[in-house]
Amino acid sequence: MSWKGLKNGEKTLLDHVFWASGISRDALAAASSFSKSRANAAVAELLEQGLLEPTGELASTGGRRAETLRLSRSLGVLIGVAVGATGLEVGILSPDLSVLAHHSEPADVRDGPVPVLARIRALMRELLAQCGVLPRQVIAIGIGLPGPVDFDTGQLVNPPLMPQWDAYSIRDDIATDFAAPVFVDNDVNVMALGELWRMQRSLQNFLVVKVGTGIGCGVVCHGQVYRGANGSAGDVGHICVVPDGPRCHCGNLGCVEAMAAGPAIARMATEAAEAGQSPLLARLIAERGPLRLQDVAEASRAGDMAANQVMQRAGAYVGQMLASVVNFFNPSHVFIGGGITRVGPLFLAAVRQSVYHRSLALSTRHLEIQYTPLGERAGLIGAGVLAMQESLRRMEVE
Amino acid sequence: MSWKGLKNGEKTLLDHVFWASGISRDALAAASSFSKSRANAAVAELLEQGLLEPTGELASTGGRRAETLRLSRSLGVLIGVAVGATGLEVGILSPDLSVLAHHSEPADVRDGPVPVLARIRALMRELLAQCGVLPRQVIAIGIGLPGPVDFDTGQLVNPPLMPQWDAYSIRDDIATDFAAPVFVDNDVNVMALGELWRMQRSLQNFLVVKVGTGIGCGVVCHGQVYRGANGSAGDVGHICVVPDGPRCHCGNLGCVEAMAAGPAIARMATEAAEAGQSPLLARLIAERGPLRLQDVAEASRAGDMAANQVMQRAGAYVGQMLASVVNFFNPSHVFIGGGITRVGPLFLAAVRQSVYHRSLALSTRHLEIQYTPLGERAGLIGAGVLAMQESLRRMEVE
Repeated sequence: MSWKGLKNGEKTLLDHVFWASGISRDALAAASSFSKSRANAAVAELLEQGLLEPTGELASTGGRRAETLRLSRSLGVLIGVAVGATGLEVGILSPDLSVLAHHSEPADVRDGPVPVLARIRALMRELLAQCGVLPRQVIAIGIGLPGPVDFDTGQLVNPPLMPQWDAYSIRDDIATDFAAPVFVDNDVNVMALGELWRMQRSLQNFLVVKVGTGIGCGVVCHGQVYRGANGSAGDVGHICVVPDGPRCHCGNLGCVEAMAAGPAIARMATEAAEAGQSPLLARLIAERGPLRLQDVAEASRAGDMAANQVMQRAGAYVGQMLASVVNFFNPSHVFIGGGITRVGPLFLAAVRQSVYHRSLALSTRHLEIQYTPLGERAGLIGAGVLAMQESLRRMEVE
Repeated sequence: MSWKGLKNGEKTLLDHVFWASGISRDALAAASSFSKSRANAAVAELLEQGLLEPTGELASTGGRRAETLRLSRSLGVLIGVAVGATGLEVGILSPDLSVLAHHSEPADVRDGPVPVLARIRALMRELLAQCGVLPRQVIAIGIGLPGPVDFDTGQLVNPPLMPQWDAYSIRDDIATDFAAPVFVDNDVNVMALGELWRMQRSLQNFLVVKVGTGIGCGVVCHGQVYRGANGSAGDVGHICVVPDGPRCHCGNLGCVEAMAAGPAIARMATEAAEAGQSPLLARLIAERGPLRLQDVAEASRAGDMAANQVMQRAGAYVGQMLASVVNFFNPSHVFIGGGITRVGPLFLAAVRQSVYHRSLALSTRHLEIQYTPLGERAGLIGAGVLAMQESLRRMEVE
């Protein structure tokens, strides 16, 4: 990409446009703390260089036309990859994060990094071809993975769900096909980044909690993703909710992940079916084999009492964990994502009830708890944000 | 103070010197990202204006003299006030936070703001006179209070330990004697700010936990005190540690504050004395009346078995609460302060054991848990840092 020789002020403008795509020239000038004439001159230069492009026009205000701006599509494309414990998604995105093409499919991360990343590279090549884009036009690649990531090396560190990936060089693997820089982060950090972008950084302090095969939390603090002293911030899955509960794979008793994540929900629902409390769940087991989170979600949406009780119990445990976190962190919003979002409002209602009951009034006075607005797209969009944000950060200026 | 007409770069230099008092000219130039010659010119200007002054000289390195700098004492003085539930401290500090004079005494915040603040104003006047300084030479006043503070208005919001202070204008009260600006914050935020300054901002993500009449936590995130969406971040006292424990004054069951703060420690020790488990504690009750935290601490330091068991139980509960917080926040350090520091290593050992047992390995790999290095001075120094930091922030630049 031809963006060498930029001045620092111009880089700041590009950053503003990335975080508020479709911003008007006037709003950009105001946000940049430049004078209007200086901002206009810099924007003209960036349009000239092909780094920005007009998106269209805002409604006329007082007779003047306010042109809106986005990062230029001539810069190239981003590749976003969202890997979960049981599935993966690859997408091609424009610099302003429109999804140009994407594909998702089931996958098992326990197969190890070699086959999973080979499949991801094949999908990247296919999707690029589909868009008529060459690999050298890829600006950067962002990848979210369900485990603790050392952000500097882009490697997983003792990931409990996918031990074969420990210290595997994801960058070297991707480099067999692509020269573009690769940025890797934890899946919930990536989701949090996606939501931060969606809201144009208007929220400064919020959480994104993913409930799927595991339970994790992305933390946004002072408007930035917070990774903690060792990169393990947001590792809430092993907060204890039942002191004498069942043993978790981490060795402790009654961790929220052992009580309320996908496998625990499937276990509770199976017990209910075996106890004869739900003909529907029993039939699903007979037809499909062992229950998964999505089966229990389906039964709950169909109004099955036993499935609903399981979902309420799981929601109450997640809420109990969140009550401690909300007292400590006092976020403005908690967004809940991952496979659990398919359950519908019942799970969310149980979480809310538990949090509002156990947290301090001051912490919850304005607290909003809802499903991730980006929904199933949060991981893919977030991976695109990661790729573009880090590329902008590394831009050289004069 | 005559610091109008400063340029932005000079203000940045003053800020650097404040956060690293005694910094050498070379280190300042390096930290400021200015060229050496530009930094030297700016420092010369600030020395000329009387905003900086030399502190002395570092050891000679290779034949050259490296002059070290601090904020000039001719700027005036700061007043720091640290109010606890059962005592208060007032101090006069130089701009580089040397304590010039200070006084502490017992006080009961439940007497309400009028008599307590009148006493504080009287102490301010006395201490200033003792230093030979006039009220108009006060740069700013920083106050730490044991309750939730709305930082912008400087008022307490529904403080559980001191309800009469709710929405009382502390600024208007102080203004009856002093024209200097007044900055008010929660006591643990102020302690965290003090420790941040002591370490010259070298730690970016840490906690300061105060265990006294209540339990609270100051949070430093990305190198800044973090207050949360409503200013209640760090309100860890009502995190549940015993789901079916005794009812807390907040209405919930088994909050860590109800199980392990000063009053709970006194209660457990009294029960031990009444059960005949400790002749020493029984004698202290006979001699001094109802036990306080400091009596139990004294018995523990004297080796009393029952007092030691109480301290270990309280430490285990605090550690259990911290385990959740450490999993979520992954701080590099947890500093424990407040009245509990008088107990000695026993309490700290129990906290550590509980945290290391319950937190994830990755979160605790490099975690350090220790008593606040500033000790009893953390509140006073922190109040001085608050006053100076906010004054520097509000400095007008050209």
